[in-house]
Amino acid sequence: MSGPVTFYFEFASPYSYFATFKIEETCEALGREVEWKPFLLGALFKVTGSQPLSTIPMKGEYCENDWQRLSRYMNVPWTMPEAFPISTVAAGRAFYWIHDQDPALAKQFAKEIFMTYFGRGQDVGSPDAVAEVAAPLGINHAELAAALADDKVKQRLKDETQSAIDAGVFGAPYFIVDGEGFWGSDRMWMIRRWIERGGW
Amino acid sequence: MSGPVTFYFEFASPYSYFATFKIEETCEALGREVEWKPFLLGALFKVTGSQPLSTIPMKGEYCENDWQRLSRYMNVPWTMPEAFPISTVAAGRAFYWIHDQDPALAKQFAKEIFMTYFGRGQDVGSPDAVAEVAAPLGINHAELAAALADDKVKQRLKDETQSAIDAGVFGAPYFIVDGEGFWGSDRMWMIRRWIERGGW
Repeated sequence: MSGPVTFYFEFASPYSYFATFKIEETCEALGREVEWKPFLLGALFKVTGSQPLSTIPMKGEYCENDWQRLSRYMNVPWTMPEAFPISTVAAGRAFYWIHDQDPALAKQFAKEIFMTYFGRGQDVGSPDAVAEVAAPLGINHAELAAALADDKVKQRLKDETQSAIDAGVFGAPYFIVDGEGFWGSDRMWMIRRWIERGGW
Repeated sequence: MSGPVTFYFEFASPYSYFATFKIEETCEALGREVEWKPFLLGALFKVTGSQPLSTIPMKGEYCENDWQRLSRYMNVPWTMPEAFPISTVAAGRAFYWIHDQDPALAKQFAKEIFMTYFGRGQDVGSPDAVAEVAAPLGINHAELAAALADDKVKQRLKDETQSAIDAGVFGAPYFIVDGEGFWGSDRMWMIRRWIERGGW
């Protein structure tokens, strides 16, 4: 098989943010496309019983330090947002609505949401904040606002989240390559080896 | 600073097992000693509210597959033990008792415990099983059996586990390098870079 690598992520997940700087490059070198799939980690946590990282004793503080360290080592921007975590319902809905019109633009939009939230530390939770990020990409504010309130668009994000859970996704980022799952932004080496070796 | 790298691990943790094949080599190349410190993950879970991996929905199945995959990619033995997870109180007590007499022998003992449990899938939970692993290393069965029931030896493992928690250890494997913590067997690259760069 040589289908796309599916990249499941949550817009409020720092490790998803870090993965965005590596997954395209990793897959491009191997001749694979990357399909981006935002989903809602909160819905998943109801299934797995997990909690947001920042609320877990000890692990929360570790991760805050780890994100700063990763940004230095990867040479990418990092600002811990004051509002963290946030609901990313608006960003997720916007993504799939844009995606249905222009998949490449949706990726660009996703990168801008991540950069605004984790690169500059600005809240991207509200529909207005999402529309502001989208505007410079040529996405009409009024049309996007209408889409975010559209029942079909709302349902789409729910469906995509359920599909992720059905596919075995239990955290973010999560990658599926030819049916095989890989969890975490640390697993680029394994995805690379999996594709090069053609599996096991 | 150029002190030893502290390697905190749990004998019943598969990712700790995989880390044993990498941490010595990684640190030796950087001129650092490795200090091995088994602790009881169960005591830690009481603090963090975590659960054994195998009991977490979705993540449990993922990890069982991941361990097989890691063993193939790392070219090291792997047999999923029928008894998993197990109490490693006896192995932990034995480790520190051996360590106080011969630190190098304690490392060798730890590697044998891991290989017996995860390499060959044999239960190493009981004092007898631990003594059987220790015997070929020249460790007297009767003396070890007495040590395992000794209150000072029991307290030592409790103290070491508490010290690990006090040091910020929230999972296994966990490494502390010059006061900086690194979690997970995937972080060898980061430990290497940390030591090479002298920190941030």
